[in-house]
Amino acid sequence: MKKLKIGIVGAGRIGNVHAESITYHIPDAEVLMVTDVMEESAKRLAERFGVPRWSGDYMDIIRDPEIDAVLVCSPTPTHADITIAALKAGKHVFCEKPVHTSIERIEEVARVAEETGKKLQIGFNRRFDHNHAHVQRLAQDGTLGNLELIKITSRDPEPPSPEYAASSGGLYIDMMIHDFDMAMFLAGCDVKEVYAMGTSLVDKRIGEAGDVDTSIVTLTFENGALGVIDNSRRAAYGYDQRVEAFGSLGMAADENDGDSTVRVSTAAGVVSDKPQFFFLERYMASFTEEMRQFIRAINEDREVPVGIHAGLMSVVLAKAAKKSLDEHRPVAISEIYGG
Amino acid sequence: MKKLKIGIVGAGRIGNVHAESITYHIPDAEVLMVTDVMEESAKRLAERFGVPRWSGDYMDIIRDPEIDAVLVCSPTPTHADITIAALKAGKHVFCEKPVHTSIERIEEVARVAEETGKKLQIGFNRRFDHNHAHVQRLAQDGTLGNLELIKITSRDPEPPSPEYAASSGGLYIDMMIHDFDMAMFLAGCDVKEVYAMGTSLVDKRIGEAGDVDTSIVTLTFENGALGVIDNSRRAAYGYDQRVEAFGSLGMAADENDGDSTVRVSTAAGVVSDKPQFFFLERYMASFTEEMRQFIRAINEDREVPVGIHAGLMSVVLAKAAKKSLDEHRPVAISEIYGG
Amino acid sequence: MKKLKIGIVGAGRIGNVHAESITYHIPDAEVLMVTDVMEESAKRLAERFGVPRWSGDYMDIIRDPEIDAVLVCSPTPTHADITIAALKAGKHVFCEKPVHTSIERIEEVARVAEETGKKLQIGFNRRFDHNHAHVQRLAQDGTLGNLELIKITSRDPEPPSPEYAASSGGLYIDMMIHDFDMAMFLAGCDVKEVYAMGTSLVDKRIGEAGDVDTSIVTLTFENGALGVIDNSRRAAYGYDQRVEAFGSLGMAADENDGDSTVRVSTAAGVVSDKPQFFFLERYMASFTEEMRQFIRAINEDREVPVGIHAGLMSVVLAKAAKKSLDEHRPVAISEIYGG
Amino acid sequence: MKKLKIGIVGAGRIGNVHAESITYHIPDAEVLMVTDVMEESAKRLAERFGVPRWSGDYMDIIRDPEIDAVLVCSPTPTHADITIAALKAGKHVFCEKPVHTSIERIEEVARVAEETGKKLQIGFNRRFDHNHAHVQRLAQDGTLGNLELIKITSRDPEPPSPEYAASSGGLYIDMMIHDFDMAMFLAGCDVKEVYAMGTSLVDKRIGEAGDVDTSIVTLTFENGALGVIDNSRRAAYGYDQRVEAFGSLGMAADENDGDSTVRVSTAAGVVSDKPQFFFLERYMASFTEEMRQFIRAINEDREVPVGIHAGLMSVVLAKAAKKSLDEHRPVAISEIYGG
Repeated sequence: MKKLKIGIVGAGRIGNVHAESITYHIPDAEVLMVTDVMEESAKRLAERFGVPRWSGDYMDIIRDPEIDAVLVCSPTPTHADITIAALKAGKHVFCEKPVHTSIERIEEVARVAEETGKKLQIGFNRRFDHNHAHVQRLAQDGTLGNLELIKITSRDPEPPSPEYAASSGGLYIDMMIHDFDMAMFLAGCDVKEVYAMGTSLVDKRIGEAGDVDTSIVTLTFENGALGVIDNSRRAAYGYDQRVEAFGSLGMAADENDGDSTVRVSTAAGVVSDKPQFFFLERYMASFTEEMRQFIRAINEDREVPVGIHAGLMSVVLAKAAKKSLDEHRPVAISEIYGG
Repeated sequence: MKKLKIGIVGAGRIGNVHAESITYHIPDAEVLMVTDVMEESAKRLAERFGVPRWSGDYMDIIRDPEIDAVLVCSPTPTHADITIAALKAGKHVFCEKPVHTSIERIEEVARVAEETGKKLQIGFNRRFDHNHAHVQRLAQDGTLGNLELIKITSRDPEPPSPEYAASSGGLYIDMMIHDFDMAMFLAGCDVKEVYAMGTSLVDKRIGEAGDVDTSIVTLTFENGALGVIDNSRRAAYGYDQRVEAFGSLGMAADENDGDSTVRVSTAAGVVSDKPQFFFLERYMASFTEEMRQFIRAINEDREVPVGIHAGLMSVVLAKAAKKSLDEHRPVAISEIYGG
Repeated sequence: MKKLKIGIVGAGRIGNVHAESITYHIPDAEVLMVTDVMEESAKRLAERFGVPRWSGDYMDIIRDPEIDAVLVCSPTPTHADITIAALKAGKHVFCEKPVHTSIERIEEVARVAEETGKKLQIGFNRRFDHNHAHVQRLAQDGTLGNLELIKITSRDPEPPSPEYAASSGGLYIDMMIHDFDMAMFLAGCDVKEVYAMGTSLVDKRIGEAGDVDTSIVTLTFENGALGVIDNSRRAAYGYDQRVEAFGSLGMAADENDGDSTVRVSTAAGVVSDKPQFFFLERYMASFTEEMRQFIRAINEDREVPVGIHAGLMSVVLAKAAKKSLDEHRPVAISEIYGG
Repeated sequence: MKKLKIGIVGAGRIGNVHAESITYHIPDAEVLMVTDVMEESAKRLAERFGVPRWSGDYMDIIRDPEIDAVLVCSPTPTHADITIAALKAGKHVFCEKPVHTSIERIEEVARVAEETGKKLQIGFNRRFDHNHAHVQRLAQDGTLGNLELIKITSRDPEPPSPEYAASSGGLYIDMMIHDFDMAMFLAGCDVKEVYAMGTSLVDKRIGEAGDVDTSIVTLTFENGALGVIDNSRRAAYGYDQRVEAFGSLGMAADENDGDSTVRVSTAAGVVSDKPQFFFLERYMASFTEEMRQFIRAINEDREVPVGIHAGLMSVVLAKAAKKSLDEHRPVAISEIYGG
């Protein structure tokens, strides 16, 4: 079997995650090169996973005729440039989210993907999570009847530094973007309107930096269903990730994964495991599964499971939520995009 | 022991519930008279619980010098009149919710209660539920730290007829009023602002009658916490009643009560009990407990656990939610009351 | 409606439980007299529940022509004598377990009940528990297919004093007798053979007094199924009461009841309620239900739900288990009874 | 990093499991050769995992000087011969359970391991399961206090053919052997006595072939605790694997793993996932973990986590259980071994 040859741009945490998935779990692909502006990082990843080549310049991947597909795992501002360069060089691309913070640049990426006919998948890994994906199947296969309500809880175990929060583009584009995508995934359609409430209760320096750390956002979907997302930058008990879909025939809801199913009963109470610590523990299998499906989409020439539309609409929703928060009113999606 | 003498105005479902609590579960009180505009109903209740007197005119209770306390269980439009008459006649009053749909009338009731110095308790029974009350204790005793998010799910098993929905004053005053009170109970403070989204997905005739059957309402509390309530008039799996309080030190959340803890594992899956059917099953113990505490407040001259402020603010929130829905914008509570 | 007139012999804890059930929860019966060898106790119960007559001599109940039914709640050694006297006086009898520690005396009680044609119900209240009864229905209605395994866990929150343990007749007749009855109730048939292992791990003085405080007993049922019961006199987390029925089509198992469904998630873990403290909390509803069904059996002339056969076989199993423990070998029931 | 070189004898299901673990999950080892008496099977495994050499003769592994460690995954009767040959050739050995059905042969294996000083690990993978291992830690670290009761439920989803059951050596050596080892693992000591009840309720042809398919076995541990294991060859709802440890300070118990945490609530009830299908799904991570620890024991010259004593005592218990069943009496371990 000929293995698909992969180049990874960006040797940070997520680049390592994908390298591990491909090296250990996906027999029909292999990482041929990794690059990072800090060449030392690229070298470390290469040595860890036996990747034969590394470099400080991502153009070495773009220009390498052996490489079939590029994983764009570099900082957000570079996503669009690298993705476009790779597509134009005839390579399939897996691009981490968000594609860009500018809607125009995302549209440009979409156009190039269209023109080149290459595969382009966006890194919304949570769609591949065993729990959330099961809720989505039940929401989409008719088990729950006509969808009426979607609820998403998403809370991080620990807040970022105020500096990070400020530079990240804010909670909506940095954190809730995953939940916007999950909401559309569960509902099976786009969103018409959002209303955002937000405040800084976790760390007031986050508020001073112009961001929020606690937020509830409500959604009206194109299909008439209603939705609500709550985010907090800090849950004392760990990474809280739950979704609920409610329809005319019933409800599907998931619970957090713990490290075990053990319950300990003592005089102090009946104690179960806390949620698994953070996204690397909780969602590791979903990272592997999204990569497996990306590679299958290329090898079998099938549609990618998460296309550029998801990359675009999640950013649109993040912008609409920020506008709603700033202007203290519900905001129609058409005010941001496609109006 | 001298038993407190009770008169019940209104021999409908809730009048029967209170008569049953007093007769079978509260040794230090007894029902002396019941009235109903349909005298036949009053007689039936009297016979069922061994109540010695009945009548078609509630003034027979007001004028009866033996009666210490009156339970106002008649239709909503009559609550304020009967409550005021009873207070002025020197009787303690337990009044079902909502006290009235007019804020002015509720304020009048409050004034009369103040002037007469008699006890006045409002029938928000869910505060006495074993699950919700436990969450509230944890929210208020510091276990959860600084409160940040309150979430309430409240869904009925079956929708009312469109006629009932139309005449009930709408979902916010008829159904969500319980959840508005629960939200303030859990948060330990009043609400500053609401935003309501609503639609009719369950029965479009409810929408045609000008009401909604599915709604999400977000809340900003005076203490800075955020909240969200979701209501549906129909949950296929039964009466869904869950609350969640989240703070800087953790979260407390309850689950629905079923009839048993049995899990049945077969080839078809692992099946647990559905939620108990409706409010008479689910909240029966809370009805008894609110009555027990009302009678104790009288006998021991203590403050009632749910006073007229709760009766007032729940109606204010219902009105604010309706205004928000109609005007499609967040509504400050000060626009409705106390501004 | 004419109320059934009840006399209660024995004003201890269980006498009070039944008086409370009848007074507050069973409209079609009333307690007319209570007796206790300590007349003061009888008087206290009478005053607490408004019982008109009390006495220090149970014969006052036996001789009272107004009394329809007698509840035998006195110490175990007196059960048979009082039951026989009451039956012969033409009264229905509810007798607490165990009926007697002598099989011959139980057989005599059975004969008298047969001859007089009066109702005789034995106080195995756990059969009326909402959880265990649901498992039993599923075991008997075919949902689980052919029954293969029955498992019962039964652990007390706190050990008795060594003196009590010694005088109680031992763990099998004092504590596991409930589980022997539950096993036959779940299996729907009698037992053929038992094997008992026991030791004193909780309090070695219990062992020194000739009893055990920790025991596992296995059972072979007449229908071919196998069973196992485990007992401990002390569970640090409270009263642990669980049953499991397993058959060719699946399994039904229950969990302990807690005081609420609340889960508290903090840095320390996810904590749920411990089991309800002890039998008065955990099984209160079952005491009421057994009394309700006893009274209905009389009023509607139906078969009692727990007859003398259950009273007999539970004692037979306790004796067989003790013999098995002493002789360190499996013991056939036919060695004890009916061989 | 120099990778440890592995040879696998036996290219059946479990040989493939270990090859997959090493190839994809254990960076510091690699499979160099695989053999199987059916050379075609060896070749298939080799091609699947990129193993460079294969053969029909396990002596090719024994004689290969490059190979550091041998995994014995061949049929049970060959385990001892191959293990001894590998140890004598200076190789570390991982041997699947049971080591042999003859106690003398297991003792011989133990002697050879002792003499050669090579590592010898036995394949009791369940000790490495995330759930069971967590219960064991709590049982051994003092959280549960003095251990009093151990309970193990272990039921297969589907019965084997009667032919397999007959040739497998019977339920105790083929299936319950895992549970005997788990019992000693949880209790932290050996067993003194067993009593076995067994019958064929699942498939009467299994009974006709001289075996049982349903069994309860009770255990007395050296430390005074009591234990019970129940096995069934067929659970309609799937592979049921639960353990419970109970001590003076409390209880730790695990539940089955499902594929997701999703609960689906409809008019039909609240449905959760069934247990994961069978051992390859349920215990896959434990197979990887036992292999990781075997390789670490070699690389860091540490004691293996499961030594030959476990291999010996599990067979001793299986034999004692069979003798107890046949002779219908409790059997002391000293009757079988070390008496």
